[in-house]
Amino acid sequence: MTTLTFLGPEGTFAHQALRILPISAGADLEAAGSVLLAIEALRAGRADAALVPLENSIEGAVPATLDELANGAPLVITDEVYLPVSFNLLVRPGTPRDQIGSVATHPHAEAQVRRWLHDNLPGVPITFADSTAAGAEAVARGAYDAAISAPLAGELYGLEPLATDIADNPGAVTRFVLLTRPTAPAPRTGNDRTSLVAYLREDHSGALLEILTEFSSRAVNLTRIESRPTKGRIGQYCFSIDCEGHIADERVGYALAALHRICADVRFLGSYPRRDGRQGPVPAGRTDQEFVDSHTWLRSIRDSGTA
Amino acid sequence: MTTLTFLGPEGTFAHQALRILPISAGADLEAAGSVLLAIEALRAGRADAALVPLENSIEGAVPATLDELANGAPLVITDEVYLPVSFNLLVRPGTPRDQIGSVATHPHAEAQVRRWLHDNLPGVPITFADSTAAGAEAVARGAYDAAISAPLAGELYGLEPLATDIADNPGAVTRFVLLTRPTAPAPRTGNDRTSLVAYLREDHSGALLEILTEFSSRAVNLTRIESRPTKGRIGQYCFSIDCEGHIADERVGYALAALHRICADVRFLGSYPRRDGRQGPVPAGRTDQEFVDSHTWLRSIRDSGTA
Amino acid sequence: MTTLTFLGPEGTFAHQALRILPISAGADLEAAGSVLLAIEALRAGRADAALVPLENSIEGAVPATLDELANGAPLVITDEVYLPVSFNLLVRPGTPRDQIGSVATHPHAEAQVRRWLHDNLPGVPITFADSTAAGAEAVARGAYDAAISAPLAGELYGLEPLATDIADNPGAVTRFVLLTRPTAPAPRTGNDRTSLVAYLREDHSGALLEILTEFSSRAVNLTRIESRPTKGRIGQYCFSIDCEGHIADERVGYALAALHRICADVRFLGSYPRRDGRQGPVPAGRTDQEFVDSHTWLRSIRDSGTA
Amino acid sequence: MTTLTFLGPEGTFAHQALRILPISAGADLEAAGSVLLAIEALRAGRADAALVPLENSIEGAVPATLDELANGAPLVITDEVYLPVSFNLLVRPGTPRDQIGSVATHPHAEAQVRRWLHDNLPGVPITFADSTAAGAEAVARGAYDAAISAPLAGELYGLEPLATDIADNPGAVTRFVLLTRPTAPAPRTGNDRTSLVAYLREDHSGALLEILTEFSSRAVNLTRIESRPTKGRIGQYCFSIDCEGHIADERVGYALAALHRICADVRFLGSYPRRDGRQGPVPAGRTDQEFVDSHTWLRSIRDSGTA
Repeated sequence: MTTLTFLGPEGTFAHQALRILPISAGADLEAAGSVLLAIEALRAGRADAALVPLENSIEGAVPATLDELANGAPLVITDEVYLPVSFNLLVRPGTPRDQIGSVATHPHAEAQVRRWLHDNLPGVPITFADSTAAGAEAVARGAYDAAISAPLAGELYGLEPLATDIADNPGAVTRFVLLTRPTAPAPRTGNDRTSLVAYLREDHSGALLEILTEFSSRAVNLTRIESRPTKGRIGQYCFSIDCEGHIADERVGYALAALHRICADVRFLGSYPRRDGRQGPVPAGRTDQEFVDSHTWLRSIRDSGTA
Repeated sequence: MTTLTFLGPEGTFAHQALRILPISAGADLEAAGSVLLAIEALRAGRADAALVPLENSIEGAVPATLDELANGAPLVITDEVYLPVSFNLLVRPGTPRDQIGSVATHPHAEAQVRRWLHDNLPGVPITFADSTAAGAEAVARGAYDAAISAPLAGELYGLEPLATDIADNPGAVTRFVLLTRPTAPAPRTGNDRTSLVAYLREDHSGALLEILTEFSSRAVNLTRIESRPTKGRIGQYCFSIDCEGHIADERVGYALAALHRICADVRFLGSYPRRDGRQGPVPAGRTDQEFVDSHTWLRSIRDSGTA
Repeated sequence: MTTLTFLGPEGTFAHQALRILPISAGADLEAAGSVLLAIEALRAGRADAALVPLENSIEGAVPATLDELANGAPLVITDEVYLPVSFNLLVRPGTPRDQIGSVATHPHAEAQVRRWLHDNLPGVPITFADSTAAGAEAVARGAYDAAISAPLAGELYGLEPLATDIADNPGAVTRFVLLTRPTAPAPRTGNDRTSLVAYLREDHSGALLEILTEFSSRAVNLTRIESRPTKGRIGQYCFSIDCEGHIADERVGYALAALHRICADVRFLGSYPRRDGRQGPVPAGRTDQEFVDSHTWLRSIRDSGTA
Repeated sequence: MTTLTFLGPEGTFAHQALRILPISAGADLEAAGSVLLAIEALRAGRADAALVPLENSIEGAVPATLDELANGAPLVITDEVYLPVSFNLLVRPGTPRDQIGSVATHPHAEAQVRRWLHDNLPGVPITFADSTAAGAEAVARGAYDAAISAPLAGELYGLEPLATDIADNPGAVTRFVLLTRPTAPAPRTGNDRTSLVAYLREDHSGALLEILTEFSSRAVNLTRIESRPTKGRIGQYCFSIDCEGHIADERVGYALAALHRICADVRFLGSYPRRDGRQGPVPAGRTDQEFVDSHTWLRSIRDSGTA
């Protein structure tokens, strides 16, 4: 039986996102206490896949996920889920708003309701929980007066909403990724995404421009790029990158091979179906057929001096 | 009397960093409960300057600081401080290690001792505090068994270290910035840095390559670049950038003016002395004199057809 | 009275092109024996303007013109003319084709009828004349049996065509430029062209890429670029460039100013109405207003730290 | 027996250059009346190789050679020769300078002594011959009074020099290339050059920048680049290019393959030993081994998701 782990506890957005994926039907779903623990369960073989958040439209990348993907034993992304984010202010039934003296939530949630808290619960101390669901659970057992959580967590822990949809920016969405141990990429669907980490060589200024040029000269659009410190001193970076296309696409494969040459290291993080829209056609000069033709031409020139 | 605020409470790394700055001598130092509160005190005029962390060599940028600088009423950076980071495991005197059942610390600190905690305190729940000093204070009043904090916080709150220098990567350093309301930049020192935020136009792929080209064509090196979501949907970014040089340098001023043309918006975040090393000489073709000469030449050509 | 000189003698394509220009009405038209002589008459003040060929759709640039513009006392282009090229094989009346034992023409004309000569007059020696008209004149006085010339030269020198429109590639066109001593550029028409020569710094590889980047980053299209040796050793080049737009356009002016900084020298060769088609609208981010706004913004930032 | 043809007649610089090549020892050397005729003899199989000038340090590229290489049946360069150029004013023995009423020479030679002629023989008409040697031969048979030719031509045709080394710019050098019908490139020497012609797609602005980027991203330096009209209307260009390295070098081979994809066509003109200096080491990230490693890595990623 397939075992899937996710950023728990029960009732998190990750839990909700996982249940959307067909792979979750009939699988054993195991909550993990943190992104790190979920990923360790996967690496240790106690889970077959892990669902964790990668980025949020408000807060940006999730550092714990990026850092675990960039370090330690390699993992790959095999799918992604986009989930709209909706926050409620949850309390034990009967708690009036003017009795709220403490709030628990996850730092990412706090960042997305900061203005609302500032305007509506000024001066009330916020405690950071490991997850929004953990905050709700802590409120249920009386440790805090209110939680900022997903509606699902309210249902699960018997809390009631005093305010709903309180995010400072409506329309927020979180992107979750399904991780597995390395495996051959799934076949191309024609609308795919590829993820990777590029580690810069020590003292090479202009490196980002070089990296971008390898993509742009092959007409491969980037859909996300983040600089991340390489656990060394300030100023040493790696780049966490998502690009359109599949590693089996020649333009994508050769762009990554070029990065492999000019970077200290490249870590492949998977090619998988893209769930947030459709990419355009491959531009002239960058189709698979043109790559194949150009290499056939090159072999002919090298062999005989003519094509 | 000058009032300076900082990311408190008393005993944080920010507090320690602020005391290094000459401006703090004789000033009134006021701890703020969060980056947001420190910045609001500054914006509201209750403080003349605020010291907050901008980036850490392990965790990378501090999102709360980047986001407050990128949104709301404009602020500028007038100085920076680099502070080595050293974490201790702090307990109330007499607590043995095997009695530690809870740990409090700030998420950024947790990220920097994650492996150590995993290896040395497996399974012990971590609670996120607003700061490492707040974690130490909470331990002092008995709310948790141990804190991951700066040594200074231990002294301040009467705790003792059970383990010292426990960071997973030694040599970590945090960069703090001193913020003020907008003011004319201080004169050039010859070794300066300039910070800014560039907001991309809606639907313009290749925009990052364009931005980098405006810097590279003027031989202005970037010392930090971060993509940040613009509080809208995933895939819409602004870039938070530090570059070498001063806005009064022609090559820097014109690079920013070029960004002003090709971006939806550019927010200037200050030119200030650079504290982490010395920049090299300005390359040929990019000195102030050459800019002045080229514009004199252009005026002559426009007026008379010859130089 | 205005004196205009042209690449003569009477009856050349240059003569014909000059008569198309409104400035030629009522002017004194003086034929010069070579491009060099025409330009020297202009430099010495014996002529007010000179019409010479700059490029041909078959043969490419005219080296003598490019080199005279790139060296010696500065001159500027104030107008251009495009003239379709049509060659005839001209003989003295009554000469049969099988009696043609020698042909005179200009090297550029020879290059454009090379295949025709090879197929139709195999083995007949070709002598290079200073111009196609000079070849016709030499035939008229009996020095050669046939000339490859413009139809006008046939009329002028009393020759008859044995073959017409004999160019290997039909549709050829020559671009002539009207030169004057340096003067303030004429006002913008909205559809202008600017010419210049950029001299590379001694040992700077990648210089052409830098030059092109200064144009492309300001969205200024090039309409012609030629490398020319700088009269030194092989491998040292200058670039003769035409770009769209007028020196009074901010994007064009600043692109040239940037070249002035990164090149050993830049020689301005004029801004003048473009006669071969209409340029598109100025792209977003490169209009004059955006340049002015960006510099206003920069001044405000430098003065007060905010815009 | 090997038959080699060259731009004749006997006594040209090409003749002299050909005799420097080891291949000429024991070969049958046949003078051709023009670059076109030399190349046609080669294409028709009447010669095994042809030596023709490609560029001159003063006049730049030789259009006839570039155009023949760019059009018609493919040919390749298999070697090159650099020859210093030295011009003499040659007359029949006893001719005094003040009796010189006509001068014959080749247009390229005329361009290199233009100032000298202007200063020393003002007003004397110049007639263009097919070669400098042909000019000397014509003087010998009394058709003109003086020739501008190589010293060798003077000896060959019994003329005496009235002035020596009269070039306007001393130190001129001509580069000759040895052409053959297409054949497998000679093995790498480690100091090679590769020549090609890149034909632009119809309506693609920015194409030159794209072409240069394919070379620069692979750290392949260009040693010559010329735009040439494609025998169509003005503004349509191909680029005649020399770059460092050998088609068997991975960085060179893949750069040309990339051009094959983004250009309308690429014509390979040979890889051969470079005779004008030594190229530097291949930069990091562009060695053959790194290309091979990157493609091995790519295959592994495509097969198994990990390297």
